[in-house]
Amino acid sequence: MNTYFFNDLLGTIVERGRSIIDRGQGRAATNADLADLAESLVGGRGEASGVAVAATLLDDYAELDREARAGFFRILAERFGAPPGPLAEAARAFIERPDETNALRLHDVSEPRRQELIRRLNRAPGGTAALVEMRTDLLRELREHPELTAVDHDFRHLFSSWFNRGFLVLRRIDWSTPAVVLEKIIRYEAVHRINGWEDLRRRIDPADRRLYAFFHPALVDDPLIFVEVALTGDIPSAIAPILAEERQPLDPKRATTAVFYSISNCQEGLRGISFGNFLIKQVVEELARDFPALDTFVTLSPVPGFRAWLDQERGKEGPAVLTAADRTLLDKLDDPGWTADEATVAAAKPVLMALCAGYFHQSLTKHGTPTDPVARFHLGNGARLEQINFLADGSAKALAASHGLMVNYLYDPRQIERHHEAYANEGRIAVSSAVRRLVRKTSQREPSQHQSAVASHE
Amino acid sequence: MNTYFFNDLLGTIVERGRSIIDRGQGRAATNADLADLAESLVGGRGEASGVAVAATLLDDYAELDREARAGFFRILAERFGAPPGPLAEAARAFIERPDETNALRLHDVSEPRRQELIRRLNRAPGGTAALVEMRTDLLRELREHPELTAVDHDFRHLFSSWFNRGFLVLRRIDWSTPAVVLEKIIRYEAVHRINGWEDLRRRIDPADRRLYAFFHPALVDDPLIFVEVALTGDIPSAIAPILAEERQPLDPKRATTAVFYSISNCQEGLRGISFGNFLIKQVVEELARDFPALDTFVTLSPVPGFRAWLDQERGKEGPAVLTAADRTLLDKLDDPGWTADEATVAAAKPVLMALCAGYFHQSLTKHGTPTDPVARFHLGNGARLEQINFLADGSAKALAASHGLMVNYLYDPRQIERHHEAYANEGRIAVSSAVRRLVRKTSQREPSQHQSAVASHE
Amino acid sequence: MNTYFFNDLLGTIVERGRSIIDRGQGRAATNADLADLAESLVGGRGEASGVAVAATLLDDYAELDREARAGFFRILAERFGAPPGPLAEAARAFIERPDETNALRLHDVSEPRRQELIRRLNRAPGGTAALVEMRTDLLRELREHPELTAVDHDFRHLFSSWFNRGFLVLRRIDWSTPAVVLEKIIRYEAVHRINGWEDLRRRIDPADRRLYAFFHPALVDDPLIFVEVALTGDIPSAIAPILAEERQPLDPKRATTAVFYSISNCQEGLRGISFGNFLIKQVVEELARDFPALDTFVTLSPVPGFRAWLDQERGKEGPAVLTAADRTLLDKLDDPGWTADEATVAAAKPVLMALCAGYFHQSLTKHGTPTDPVARFHLGNGARLEQINFLADGSAKALAASHGLMVNYLYDPRQIERHHEAYANEGRIAVSSAVRRLVRKTSQREPSQHQSAVASHE
Amino acid sequence: MNTYFFNDLLGTIVERGRSIIDRGQGRAATNADLADLAESLVGGRGEASGVAVAATLLDDYAELDREARAGFFRILAERFGAPPGPLAEAARAFIERPDETNALRLHDVSEPRRQELIRRLNRAPGGTAALVEMRTDLLRELREHPELTAVDHDFRHLFSSWFNRGFLVLRRIDWSTPAVVLEKIIRYEAVHRINGWEDLRRRIDPADRRLYAFFHPALVDDPLIFVEVALTGDIPSAIAPILAEERQPLDPKRATTAVFYSISNCQEGLRGISFGNFLIKQVVEELARDFPALDTFVTLSPVPGFRAWLDQERGKEGPAVLTAADRTLLDKLDDPGWTADEATVAAAKPVLMALCAGYFHQSLTKHGTPTDPVARFHLGNGARLEQINFLADGSAKALAASHGLMVNYLYDPRQIERHHEAYANEGRIAVSSAVRRLVRKTSQREPSQHQSAVASHE
Repeated sequence: MNTYFFNDLLGTIVERGRSIIDRGQGRAATNADLADLAESLVGGRGEASGVAVAATLLDDYAELDREARAGFFRILAERFGAPPGPLAEAARAFIERPDETNALRLHDVSEPRRQELIRRLNRAPGGTAALVEMRTDLLRELREHPELTAVDHDFRHLFSSWFNRGFLVLRRIDWSTPAVVLEKIIRYEAVHRINGWEDLRRRIDPADRRLYAFFHPALVDDPLIFVEVALTGDIPSAIAPILAEERQPLDPKRATTAVFYSISNCQEGLRGISFGNFLIKQVVEELARDFPALDTFVTLSPVPGFRAWLDQERGKEGPAVLTAADRTLLDKLDDPGWTADEATVAAAKPVLMALCAGYFHQSLTKHGTPTDPVARFHLGNGARLEQINFLADGSAKALAASHGLMVNYLYDPRQIERHHEAYANEGRIAVSSAVRRLVRKTSQREPSQHQSAVASHE
Repeated sequence: MNTYFFNDLLGTIVERGRSIIDRGQGRAATNADLADLAESLVGGRGEASGVAVAATLLDDYAELDREARAGFFRILAERFGAPPGPLAEAARAFIERPDETNALRLHDVSEPRRQELIRRLNRAPGGTAALVEMRTDLLRELREHPELTAVDHDFRHLFSSWFNRGFLVLRRIDWSTPAVVLEKIIRYEAVHRINGWEDLRRRIDPADRRLYAFFHPALVDDPLIFVEVALTGDIPSAIAPILAEERQPLDPKRATTAVFYSISNCQEGLRGISFGNFLIKQVVEELARDFPALDTFVTLSPVPGFRAWLDQERGKEGPAVLTAADRTLLDKLDDPGWTADEATVAAAKPVLMALCAGYFHQSLTKHGTPTDPVARFHLGNGARLEQINFLADGSAKALAASHGLMVNYLYDPRQIERHHEAYANEGRIAVSSAVRRLVRKTSQREPSQHQSAVASHE
Repeated sequence: MNTYFFNDLLGTIVERGRSIIDRGQGRAATNADLADLAESLVGGRGEASGVAVAATLLDDYAELDREARAGFFRILAERFGAPPGPLAEAARAFIERPDETNALRLHDVSEPRRQELIRRLNRAPGGTAALVEMRTDLLRELREHPELTAVDHDFRHLFSSWFNRGFLVLRRIDWSTPAVVLEKIIRYEAVHRINGWEDLRRRIDPADRRLYAFFHPALVDDPLIFVEVALTGDIPSAIAPILAEERQPLDPKRATTAVFYSISNCQEGLRGISFGNFLIKQVVEELARDFPALDTFVTLSPVPGFRAWLDQERGKEGPAVLTAADRTLLDKLDDPGWTADEATVAAAKPVLMALCAGYFHQSLTKHGTPTDPVARFHLGNGARLEQINFLADGSAKALAASHGLMVNYLYDPRQIERHHEAYANEGRIAVSSAVRRLVRKTSQREPSQHQSAVASHE
Repeated sequence: MNTYFFNDLLGTIVERGRSIIDRGQGRAATNADLADLAESLVGGRGEASGVAVAATLLDDYAELDREARAGFFRILAERFGAPPGPLAEAARAFIERPDETNALRLHDVSEPRRQELIRRLNRAPGGTAALVEMRTDLLRELREHPELTAVDHDFRHLFSSWFNRGFLVLRRIDWSTPAVVLEKIIRYEAVHRINGWEDLRRRIDPADRRLYAFFHPALVDDPLIFVEVALTGDIPSAIAPILAEERQPLDPKRATTAVFYSISNCQEGLRGISFGNFLIKQVVEELARDFPALDTFVTLSPVPGFRAWLDQERGKEGPAVLTAADRTLLDKLDDPGWTADEATVAAAKPVLMALCAGYFHQSLTKHGTPTDPVARFHLGNGARLEQINFLADGSAKALAASHGLMVNYLYDPRQIERHHEAYANEGRIAVSSAVRRLVRKTSQREPSQHQSAVASHE
């Protein structure tokens, strides 16, 4: 109702965000110039003319080439940490008298000067977007320059605070959304590629399709993360029917199942800041409110590590996981044309499904959690591994990654917390009885030391 | 242009903000219950069902009475600081090897657990508003309970980061603004009281009146700070003509002067987080863009400490500041009816104006800056003390505070930085030659050790 | 969802609407000047520079005094009708050959030139609002100048077409509505006066109060008609509890009854263009959607003609309507203090209720419909006279109009059409059995020749 | 500023507009059923349950096949005209006493019942859009069924009134516009086809490109007409550089010229309702306000009738327009490859330009206006024929229509009215001296009887 007020409010943000584009005046600044500006910004001038200094620094940064940017990051690492002298002094004072006052002082003194620098840079018009971009550059350098870790630590600390879930806004994206946002959805979709505007339209315009995204007010029309949802009559066992060009839409009021079939993070510069957990849960709430008949919330997810694990097991000697029969079959699957051979397909089905069910229990990190990152995400959120689908994605990419298998993770609002706690505290993963039945006895007999399955009330 | 998108976006925020109101279900929680919830929130459960736990804690808090709230704060102070053991260990490690890694660890370990708690509370719907409210309570307790200082330190640290100028949005308030915002303007005005809706209308509806406010997206329709502006033909020397009920509005295109005649902070819970500096500067920019004929940006400000200082000087012996003639005159002004006596008025004018000019140079803090808080704010922002106005505000409040004097501080965009730096680095205050001429020779001969005037190009 | 687009769209309208205010340049035009402009507008120039000519005419009109405006209307009546010569010719042609072509030509030729003039005036920025204002003036003149009837006929014809229900937009008004709209609600409320902003707030802000208005896009922020609704637990029998200052709001989800307790037309210049019927029906739809538990939609309405009718009957001789006992009682009620006398109150109740029930059946227009205008409106809309309430409004106004009685008209969506048709085709009014039982036998024995009651399924 | 209010306001319209889509329930109505509904709608039921009846009629209509729709139109033509008996009577009464009262009655009685029917249909949700669709059907039938002319007459009469310029809203379309609007722009562009979303983007996103459209609030997100504008440094002499894929955008603040290079009507059902004149003039105003440096407003327009006229002249005997040399050259141009032959191109240029200049003066309708419809539109609006461009559009379509010539019409705000009046009253067309110099003497010596050129101040 009173949303009006913030139209223009954010209109203002937009304008400020846009104005940054016009700013570059072709000055060629060096990374040393930037370091001077940075000093000036965290020093006295930052107070009076801070916005202008911040804007200039960000503009100049945008003009730097990759090497100069790396040089600027090095300066940040070397010169903008906490001041060693005072820090040592505060550390000693705390050891001498470990009271709250000295603890507080120690915390204040130990704050790297980078944090104040980043906060002041954020005051510039379009500052937040520029800083997210800057961290994208930083992450690229970080791979080869571990000495920049401390710099990234500060970015990440502040972004975690600024992109707090309380500041995020969920928005449905549909065919009435401005093109400037839609083109970003096309660009950012990372799971099932969107082939142009008509393909996008098929995913957001029909009554049985939904797309939700989180936005941050300071990033204007740039989404942080989004999820694509299909409303269906049952849990889907393949992706093709969902993405089909010719499809009879379902009346959403008659749908019983909401399928989260694609989740994409949009901002490389926000890597490590977690939104997906909150997104799924709020979308479940929204959908449940809009369509009271929905009773099942489920994903249709890839199994990105399955085949690599199989290949690893094939390299091992002995029958630990793979039987001789398994190996013979898997050899056949090395021929990418196997899906056209009926006999192989028929033979592969029980074997792959059993192995895949085993995979989630046997391929574990040192913490006892599945190595499969998608599994870790959903199981960690409190979902349950519900169903394994044979030949669910026939694309070359999926055949290469998982022999075409996909799985469903089920989000049952009444069980989420129980599953999450069992996972977080005891390393147990929630698995449906159907999947449990797929797991071969041998694997069940020798569960990982860290892990066992949670029995779910079905 | 593409502001549309964020209507609903913020509509969503609004809804979430509103829903909090419906939440209290009359449960009677104790401060110990809250401490348990807080433990749970910063611990494992915070990840999976954090939003719900945070919402419950905030709801329960809202039900507590004052004493229980104070108890909750005490628990936060005692139990939610940095863990002393690990902190001592990290401190020792740094002293032993003062490298970047150990500095970083020291900073991480020294972070009070309260900070993570506050961040997680912020995830709840309406969390930001509830936290600002909570700090309002805290500041009240703080007066008598200095042991809560560390708790406030953490609130303040996070609020400084969250209410970063880059996240604030400037909005003009006018007669088309929703009533829910306008009623807050009426309530928050702290300088020249707004007497109901018609009085408000006189300040925002005429073409030569403007009101601008900063908003934060998470606080929906609650302003953070606002400034009231009159567009005039010259620098005003009294407040009454500006607030007059019957007034012929000026065509704003013909105005040469923008007068900032009232600035009010709105959120007690954000005390110490500074917005005014940024607000004035952005409003100057907005006005300059809308009305290119404007060439003068000036305040009409009270002098809250003048009379108290005079009274102090009257208590001193010797002629240091006040002459015998001064004292005789000031005695007369003790009778509040003096403004009706023409002879006294005529005699008072030169004396009060000279003394007031002297006041800004002579009544100094230990840092050498003026004791007058309004002066400190504007001079620190880079403004210049431009004009002293005799009998500019005849209200009882103003007579009591400053014998009715008001002053104008001038914001000259070309001089702001120079003035600020002279003030910040050398303690020199910018003063117009007109005001300088008012200062008596003796005072000029003996400038404060810290302070002297900046010559301004006029 | 895609409403965004039209923000700015209507923003544009607003601007245009506003710009008209700045336009008057103090030229003193006469009604003859206006007539010249009008000629020019319906003639050739209207095509090329029509908007400018229309704007000038409307500006000039706004500067005229009442007499000159009346003069302008007279010119419209005399010179801007249909051209008599061509009209006579077309009439003769039709009589000679009454085919479709000649009928069409006759219709075209018979159109008064005023209609094209009004359509072209509407092209000016703010034209629609200016024309509604112009008709307000016209209606005032019309009382004494029946020769202007034809001019009004043309305004009314076009307004009926332009303010077609398909172009109206229903909006809920609440505390988030801009002040510029709210002040109009205060001004336009015609049934139960709104005493300032706090009183307004009590009618729109609590969860169990609603106010809905129809708007037309070309009239920007000016409502056409609005209705105030209270959500309650039962059919109310008095107005005071609804308007009470101190009230515990009802949770609207638990309300069973929506009470339309005030309906006000806002635009005098749109008199005779009917919106109320559509408004009530759409509000019923909105409420039914928002609050599925609502099962009763009812008014709480005045009975404006009751006492006048009683007084008339008292003047008649014989026992036709009033018995001797009635007359004795009514004599007592002439003393305005009667409501304080318990015995009189007790005696009055059965008599007034019976007479009031009879009033709706006996006080009839020549068409056989009730003389009471409020009854005609609601019964004509398909409502049923549900309940008569004794001493429901103790205000002086209500005592004078109806001895304090109010009634409820019930809107039962399943019966609306049946009731309407019985009323429209047979003159029968729908009355609840409770009200029917109140009617004295004698009246029932001698129903009006035109009218009888519709039995309602209860 | 207070545009907010109408977001939701139009949101409501949108919803109502959308709901109509869900309505069809597969009932198979006949045109006779519709006629019954229509009778019921203009009769008594129209008052009480009119909206529902109207909605049903429109839904049923949408289900009819083409033949049944034609049948419905025939019934409208035959049974829903003015009632012949009363009309004849009213005609006679007027002949007998031709006063204002009888004229009025005659006009009222002569109104076809179709008009009230259409007005009542408009009350349905989405009614306006459905009626515009209905007229699209009607216009198609009209070509072969002139007996439906009267039906179209009524649609057109009401649409002219409803789509009055005062109810239209100008909106800039850009990359922030919702996709649902943008896809319509792609579909409706009729002059220079838009090849997909990237091509659209090139026309609306760069800073030196603008697209403006008129909307009607009742048609929600469907534009009525739009114009595409390029901001340039001079008057363009060819279309290709404007539509080029790779282009360096001009800083719009440095542009001197606004080029209207494409104007498209969007709604076939609104044929004959003129918006273009108003659109161009308001866009000129908008651009002039946004970019004060603009001093030239000009089109780049096709010459659709030029070649057809040439071919006609070639068929005539004698040297009236074409010389023998002309004929020889034109024979060469019959080979579509001529543009590749330098010699032919060089020879063609002076001949085609002279003939084209002559064409506008010599190819005239019986009213003495140019036969070229684009010329009639712009010259009628008060523009001047400014420049003739040789080989300005090399597309097959343009070569076929005009041997590749295009022209510029100049809109000079100071001359528009003078030009329009000369055109409207005296049939004189405004032509620049450059174009005048192109016209061969012989043609100038023998100007058409109706027409001559207006001298323009250059």
